[in-house]
Amino acid sequence: MATIKDIANRLGISLGTVSKGLNGASDISEELRQAVLDTAVEMGYMTKKMKQEGHKKLCIFIENMDYLEPEQFGYDIILGFKQAAYRDNWHVTVLPITPAFQMKEKYDTYMLKNGYSGGFLVGFALQDEWMSQLENTSVPTALFDNCIKRNPNVSYIGTDSFEGIEFVIEHLISLGHRRIAFLNGSLHSMITEHRQQAFYDSMQAHGLPVEDYFVANGYYVIESAKFSLPTFLEHGATAVVCGSDVIAYGVIEECKQRGLRVPEDISVVGFDDLPPSAKTEPPLTTVRQDRIELGKCGYMALRGLINHVSISKTLLRPHFVERNSTSKRIEEQ
Amino acid sequence: MATIKDIANRLGISLGTVSKGLNGASDISEELRQAVLDTAVEMGYMTKKMKQEGHKKLCIFIENMDYLEPEQFGYDIILGFKQAAYRDNWHVTVLPITPAFQMKEKYDTYMLKNGYSGGFLVGFALQDEWMSQLENTSVPTALFDNCIKRNPNVSYIGTDSFEGIEFVIEHLISLGHRRIAFLNGSLHSMITEHRQQAFYDSMQAHGLPVEDYFVANGYYVIESAKFSLPTFLEHGATAVVCGSDVIAYGVIEECKQRGLRVPEDISVVGFDDLPPSAKTEPPLTTVRQDRIELGKCGYMALRGLINHVSISKTLLRPHFVERNSTSKRIEEQ
Repeated sequence: MATIKDIANRLGISLGTVSKGLNGASDISEELRQAVLDTAVEMGYMTKKMKQEGHKKLCIFIENMDYLEPEQFGYDIILGFKQAAYRDNWHVTVLPITPAFQMKEKYDTYMLKNGYSGGFLVGFALQDEWMSQLENTSVPTALFDNCIKRNPNVSYIGTDSFEGIEFVIEHLISLGHRRIAFLNGSLHSMITEHRQQAFYDSMQAHGLPVEDYFVANGYYVIESAKFSLPTFLEHGATAVVCGSDVIAYGVIEECKQRGLRVPEDISVVGFDDLPPSAKTEPPLTTVRQDRIELGKCGYMALRGLINHVSISKTLLRPHFVERNSTSKRIEEQ
Repeated sequence: MATIKDIANRLGISLGTVSKGLNGASDISEELRQAVLDTAVEMGYMTKKMKQEGHKKLCIFIENMDYLEPEQFGYDIILGFKQAAYRDNWHVTVLPITPAFQMKEKYDTYMLKNGYSGGFLVGFALQDEWMSQLENTSVPTALFDNCIKRNPNVSYIGTDSFEGIEFVIEHLISLGHRRIAFLNGSLHSMITEHRQQAFYDSMQAHGLPVEDYFVANGYYVIESAKFSLPTFLEHGATAVVCGSDVIAYGVIEECKQRGLRVPEDISVVGFDDLPPSAKTEPPLTTVRQDRIELGKCGYMALRGLINHVSISKTLLRPHFVERNSTSKRIEEQ
């Protein structure tokens, strides 16, 4: 576990300043105090108060998602949640789980047994056992990228996929693209469904028909491109919109292996703006989700539920990030 | 302006305790401190810090809505916003405005000229001049019950109307009603449109067709019933769903004047759960919007925007409140 010294080294400040930051002393700036707290959370430092037995506890359950490294999608979501929860002296456990675990343990029972006051569920699929249990849970629960109707104990947090995909389609159309393909992530996910619907809606709004061979569902992994790209190319796609950055990395790689240049021969767009996307070759045009803020909003919504304020939905705006993986469609002669 | 003594009298505590609450002393309970602060805001007390020139300022603009008395719809929304903003030492001005005012003054110019860091707009209609200006505003702006697409400086706060109307329709259908009429508020309002769509969706989900003569738009005023109720009755409506509690008050009154008993002859449902709705004759079945929390969420969203966190949408859950203005449909012999 990190010590005060680790925090001081990371921030390049004295031990005394770290201590002031952790203890809320008033003779350092608010910005510095926040930086100390945020770094303490990121490095896993625990205050004496948090180590005490019987401390109030929250649990983040994570499934189908990488989160241990800063460049992975889940990292900042968990970090943002923990940073916000830390300020209110919550102890947060992060628990990766599986469908099998959900079949074995009832959600409410698990929470009660382990003394958790609330849960933040990240990366769950629609058919997961706990998702159906959430319809009637009495445990305050914030859900990332999933929505439960009617239950006042459950809150949905996410990014507005519709606005994000609209930005992408408008961008590609303004560059002259018409034959636009969409390689989306896994079926049985609310967010996959939203992005797919958004793709159809946006294309329709611009009077462009969508042929079946231009829409494919793989998984949110780099290998998805292999199976779908050949069909897109066969039908003359000039741009590929991807359901995530990771899928886009695969598409760029697959294009290169086939001797196609990105963006000269084909434009590629991602979704998420993971840290590596600024450094791909070429740098990826994508839609940014502010994952730190999504985590913080997850905590805020959960705190609301714990205090009997039922926020049904919190949506963050996506930000369109134009880099070099998209360019003007050069008309064939 | 209220004094410390007024606050002490209202809460039945000593001047010293009020002073401790206002100054954040640690030897009173958190609950009491909150009660002191909330009461101070409600009574219009200002701390020395807030009276200083150059203090950071927010403005609530309110249109088409009563808010000066606790039983009016806007009162708690404004109160919740002010209570939350007060904790961060904002000074909040409340300004009732008109369409004419909006034609004369550009929104951004007005905000800049008056040194407001952000605005909370309540009760605006879709065709209002400032609504179109919000598409490109650079001023952090929280909008109650209205939504602006794409502009990251604008955030929408409201209650989930779809879920609210669904509760109502299910309730009425479970009581045996089939001929259900809907008297909605003013056209040119996003929230009116949502509730109307929700009515059609919910009826359709239960396999009930909606005849044109069973849907009418008036205004969010008590007089609306006069014009629409005769048509509903003529076609055999056994229940009337109203777009607001105020409309429902008019429907109940109009029914009585026509010699009809509520709920024996006709069931009536409101939307909002204003304070008088618990005391109407009969007490009104309705859908509660938590207006204090809506105001607080408005502030939270605005604070996010000011700090460059773009929350697109915050929706609160509605709560269905069953009272005595609805009852089983007695089938005609």
